[in-house]
Amino acid sequence: MPLLDPDRLFPNDAAARDLARALYGTVADLPIVSPHGHTDPRWYATDEPFADPAQLFVTPDHYVFRMLCSQGVALEDLGVPRVDGGPTETDGRKIWRLFARHYHLFRGTPSRLWLDHAFETVFGFDTRLTEATADDYYDRIAAALQTPAFRPRALYDRFKIEVISTTDGALDDLGWHRMIRDSGWQGRVVPAYRPDAVVDPEFDGFARNVARLGEITGEDTATWAGYLNAHRARRAFFKSFGCTSSDHGHATARTEDMAQDQAALLFAKALRGQCSAEEADAFRGQMLTEMARMSLEDGLVLQIHPGSRRNHSGPVLARFGRDKGFDIPGRTDYVAALRPLLNAVGMDPRLSVIVFTLDESSYARELAPLAGAYPALKLGPAWWFHDSAEGMRRFREMTTETAGFYNSVGFNDDTRAYLSIPARHDVARRVDCAYLATLVRSGRLAEDEAFEVAHDLAYRLAKQAYRL
Amino acid sequence: MPLLDPDRLFPNDAAARDLARALYGTVADLPIVSPHGHTDPRWYATDEPFADPAQLFVTPDHYVFRMLCSQGVALEDLGVPRVDGGPTETDGRKIWRLFARHYHLFRGTPSRLWLDHAFETVFGFDTRLTEATADDYYDRIAAALQTPAFRPRALYDRFKIEVISTTDGALDDLGWHRMIRDSGWQGRVVPAYRPDAVVDPEFDGFARNVARLGEITGEDTATWAGYLNAHRARRAFFKSFGCTSSDHGHATARTEDMAQDQAALLFAKALRGQCSAEEADAFRGQMLTEMARMSLEDGLVLQIHPGSRRNHSGPVLARFGRDKGFDIPGRTDYVAALRPLLNAVGMDPRLSVIVFTLDESSYARELAPLAGAYPALKLGPAWWFHDSAEGMRRFREMTTETAGFYNSVGFNDDTRAYLSIPARHDVARRVDCAYLATLVRSGRLAEDEAFEVAHDLAYRLAKQAYRL
Amino acid sequence: MPLLDPDRLFPNDAAARDLARALYGTVADLPIVSPHGHTDPRWYATDEPFADPAQLFVTPDHYVFRMLCSQGVALEDLGVPRVDGGPTETDGRKIWRLFARHYHLFRGTPSRLWLDHAFETVFGFDTRLTEATADDYYDRIAAALQTPAFRPRALYDRFKIEVISTTDGALDDLGWHRMIRDSGWQGRVVPAYRPDAVVDPEFDGFARNVARLGEITGEDTATWAGYLNAHRARRAFFKSFGCTSSDHGHATARTEDMAQDQAALLFAKALRGQCSAEEADAFRGQMLTEMARMSLEDGLVLQIHPGSRRNHSGPVLARFGRDKGFDIPGRTDYVAALRPLLNAVGMDPRLSVIVFTLDESSYARELAPLAGAYPALKLGPAWWFHDSAEGMRRFREMTTETAGFYNSVGFNDDTRAYLSIPARHDVARRVDCAYLATLVRSGRLAEDEAFEVAHDLAYRLAKQAYRL
Repeated sequence: MPLLDPDRLFPNDAAARDLARALYGTVADLPIVSPHGHTDPRWYATDEPFADPAQLFVTPDHYVFRMLCSQGVALEDLGVPRVDGGPTETDGRKIWRLFARHYHLFRGTPSRLWLDHAFETVFGFDTRLTEATADDYYDRIAAALQTPAFRPRALYDRFKIEVISTTDGALDDLGWHRMIRDSGWQGRVVPAYRPDAVVDPEFDGFARNVARLGEITGEDTATWAGYLNAHRARRAFFKSFGCTSSDHGHATARTEDMAQDQAALLFAKALRGQCSAEEADAFRGQMLTEMARMSLEDGLVLQIHPGSRRNHSGPVLARFGRDKGFDIPGRTDYVAALRPLLNAVGMDPRLSVIVFTLDESSYARELAPLAGAYPALKLGPAWWFHDSAEGMRRFREMTTETAGFYNSVGFNDDTRAYLSIPARHDVARRVDCAYLATLVRSGRLAEDEAFEVAHDLAYRLAKQAYRL
Repeated sequence: MPLLDPDRLFPNDAAARDLARALYGTVADLPIVSPHGHTDPRWYATDEPFADPAQLFVTPDHYVFRMLCSQGVALEDLGVPRVDGGPTETDGRKIWRLFARHYHLFRGTPSRLWLDHAFETVFGFDTRLTEATADDYYDRIAAALQTPAFRPRALYDRFKIEVISTTDGALDDLGWHRMIRDSGWQGRVVPAYRPDAVVDPEFDGFARNVARLGEITGEDTATWAGYLNAHRARRAFFKSFGCTSSDHGHATARTEDMAQDQAALLFAKALRGQCSAEEADAFRGQMLTEMARMSLEDGLVLQIHPGSRRNHSGPVLARFGRDKGFDIPGRTDYVAALRPLLNAVGMDPRLSVIVFTLDESSYARELAPLAGAYPALKLGPAWWFHDSAEGMRRFREMTTETAGFYNSVGFNDDTRAYLSIPARHDVARRVDCAYLATLVRSGRLAEDEAFEVAHDLAYRLAKQAYRL
Repeated sequence: MPLLDPDRLFPNDAAARDLARALYGTVADLPIVSPHGHTDPRWYATDEPFADPAQLFVTPDHYVFRMLCSQGVALEDLGVPRVDGGPTETDGRKIWRLFARHYHLFRGTPSRLWLDHAFETVFGFDTRLTEATADDYYDRIAAALQTPAFRPRALYDRFKIEVISTTDGALDDLGWHRMIRDSGWQGRVVPAYRPDAVVDPEFDGFARNVARLGEITGEDTATWAGYLNAHRARRAFFKSFGCTSSDHGHATARTEDMAQDQAALLFAKALRGQCSAEEADAFRGQMLTEMARMSLEDGLVLQIHPGSRRNHSGPVLARFGRDKGFDIPGRTDYVAALRPLLNAVGMDPRLSVIVFTLDESSYARELAPLAGAYPALKLGPAWWFHDSAEGMRRFREMTTETAGFYNSVGFNDDTRAYLSIPARHDVARRVDCAYLATLVRSGRLAEDEAFEVAHDLAYRLAKQAYRL
């Protein structure tokens, strides 16, 4: 019995389901455009095999291990590395069995859909993962990973990826990206400019990072003007590797547009480590507007991902470090927060600012009205905790009526789980087709238009919005 | 091929759809009661033809031009007048072609439904508006507008409007309303009392406006008592033209119930232009409670429309002025904000306070519990950005279980787009019938009750709540 | 004609409806586990008949009388007692007729479903309650209440209650519970530890209450250590009557984890009545963490019910007292608020903290991410204003994708309306089965899994989460 229902995520009533299926038929095999994600460029550069099933599916995926953790499984037992280098489980098979024993926890979650999608379409399983089938799963996946067809580049082709963006620190030398370029491989893997370490005064070693930015670029980053020029230089460097976007993940959507001399003073204070929390926040906000201005110069798309309260658990941060499933969203305001940036550059149609949210209450109230008015602003897709069937449905239902389809930008998989990429795009395509079919069947969209929009949402808008 | 699906907005499953159709059949042709809107009383007074298709559908409608603006169309090119009187497009046909070329932007939006409804039912089109059909549309609409059947009063009859309220400043002489009354025409066009200019200390020329209020009424509006009496006089004047409601569109729902001597001091400060932002806000809040007390005297219904952060874009405000699609909703609290007013008069069943929201997160959490308890409080319908199929559905789903149907007040079209009025009421009737059919089919309402409620929502409740 | 549709609350499309019906068939007759509620232990202790239909269905039920109040019916006329002992209606039949005349107000509300459920399944009615049938209803219910089959213990058996928790103050001597235990009756009625009166510095007579706590327990509650020990003693006393949980209904979800000497100082200040509002709030927050630590010692489940702004109407509070339908929810933050408690004990899988919300905007944004990560945290079901078909559907749709099913805890009826208990559990079972059927039909869950989850949600999870 297959793991996947061929009609999954389509509407339940027959007429809408038939139409959704027809719409999906025209987009199911389109190439994948992945403009924002966290896969490791090293994979594509070295094309080495993945280590083992646990290292592929469990240990690095915070969607997976946080759910097991929530039901009392210790992160150590899932092989999650400890900050102090202390012992954690290293036996992939043991980790896998623990995962399999708790697989029922994922019922009703997108992780379940993504995992089953990979199990069936990549590895050919047709029985569910359970404690009883755990070893068979482990053996077959482990064996497959040792074959050429399961190496990163082969999977890139198999997944029909047309282009994929990684996310890279401003100080990164893009060595793996260089290696990819020099290898002659035809895959298109591009970096994204993520300057947290050099725009956030509260980032570990901010001053040291900014000094390093100066060394790399030959600019005097002790001055505001030199610091901005250094950003320009790094952006140009990233662009030379195909980069088309920058990415900014602050806790809030705050932007500022202070006078340049005031910004210079604040920057000096930040370098001296003397910013208050409020001043650090203002500086980050100022840098969003500076980045937007640079985008008008160099054409990079500006992505703003606010709203996550990172590292909510002190004990987990101390023991396991960052990105361990304990980033919790909070309320996020956009209306006042984005105003300085939008007043500065928001009416310029040459600019593309893509904004995301983890706070759905802002969809209909704030984000759709803003994106439905400002030429520079577009809506990022349902993100992170909302990268799911219900999350995507709510996104469309709460934004389309005010912002339309054409102020949205297609799908982002935003993932470091390589094997989930086709599954995630498939979910997005299905949910969008279901939504379109529902609109047609309820007289809100003509059928010929639905086919056009389906193609736009699955493929064209991502390329256009990200200039890929 | 018709532009409109006769079953639009009904549920997709057959049994619920059949019932929705039957319910709709009993309310589709009911007269329109439009208790809150922004049509121009001059139209009904002079009954002059509308200028041209662009002036009718594009240039004055912020729903339409903001969407085009969001995709890079300059407001000047749509004929939106500039504050400085500088040149903007005046050729209606050019504007219309630009609009037609971007008509796909409205896919999935209520604007599309409203426009297609007018195109089909008012002008008889059966092919979609596109770049190719733009000129044909323009020619046919332009020609029709010159005929008697398309003049405002003829359309009033054709639309089966029973009564329509305009919105009028407190200082307005209601000259057009007088002209309507004196004309002998049978249409019922009533004013609503909107006193922003004389209750908001931050309104342009507040002190001058209050002085003018004194001149008009013969009251000494330099004193708090005289000022309140002047309001009473104007309300009585408005009532003499059929007015049954006042309307208040503050940024927040704040109310106050300070002692009268304290209010008098604050009023004096406001007249001297010395109120802080906080004091201005408090004064506006006090005036809501004063208006509620006057409502107990004269029976006017009190409408509170909070939540819009007006004129979000500084550049757009500077270049094009107010009401240009850049009013963005923000979070709105009702629980603490309405408490002073409700503690003062909220238990009095003779009072009718109708409250609206642009913040859907307040529906189930705040507004339904408040309206489901206080005799004086009723819920206004899904409003502005929520005047849409999904918006109305969410309104019913999130308010009915706590507040029931009978603490809601029917539909408001709230529009200045005259031709959209039948379309908007039609959408509301269809969505309500769809909701009722779903309740019946899922055993939450008996079928005979659904027919009664459908009539109440489409017609009776608006008349009752607004005392029309 | 029956009052109830046998397929009520199931999906409208045929295939999903069939599956929902099948799922429901396996859980419809499961015993009721009611881990949180407000029925009166006296009922079970004395097993006296209920007074009359009005006293059973109208006068004590704030869901019912607030709706009538919202439409202008005076609470006095419904027999709601006045604080000053002044006259209110005492004629049950008059109250009942008034209720019947307004029964249409409940259309579309869960109260209507609960009431009709009791009317049909408990009393055998098959015609709707209206003004015309009011007397027949009254007579038949009144007659039935005088028969043994309608006494509390007989209804307990008839409702298939397996265990029910009441809610009891920390100072309560549990005399009724003792009487139940000593009676030899087989029903299982357990108390829950609700210490508001002795943990909230703003509670009427806080210092006196704490002193009384000392007397009861023999601890020196003038000291912090003695005070904590007194709580331990009372918890142990409650446990001896079967108690498995404590319950905490603060206005916010604030927790604190201050140093013990600092807590002791704050406690001393509280006893002296010198806490500021902020300090009182901090003390309540500290006590949640202290209670969590005690839970680690004694195994009681900790319930946090924040978000209600109690007694919103000053006039109603003054005239009728607390709990009169004027408790209005407000925005509630969990992310920052729960952090101190979670940092202290949240990673301990032996602890069970169940958190509820009246602010649905926190479901997907805050609560599901928190419960989907912390081992100690579980999600309480849709609560109070959300104890309804739509409320439960939204709960599942907004929490399952991130937290799964197994971080939720089954259903709470949370009611003092005894006859609504089977109806409320029935609604929850139906809505969950409908949700599961929809997941299966859209390929998000396998059918065999749905049957297992249906049983978990209807029965097993409540027992497990509450350790019953």
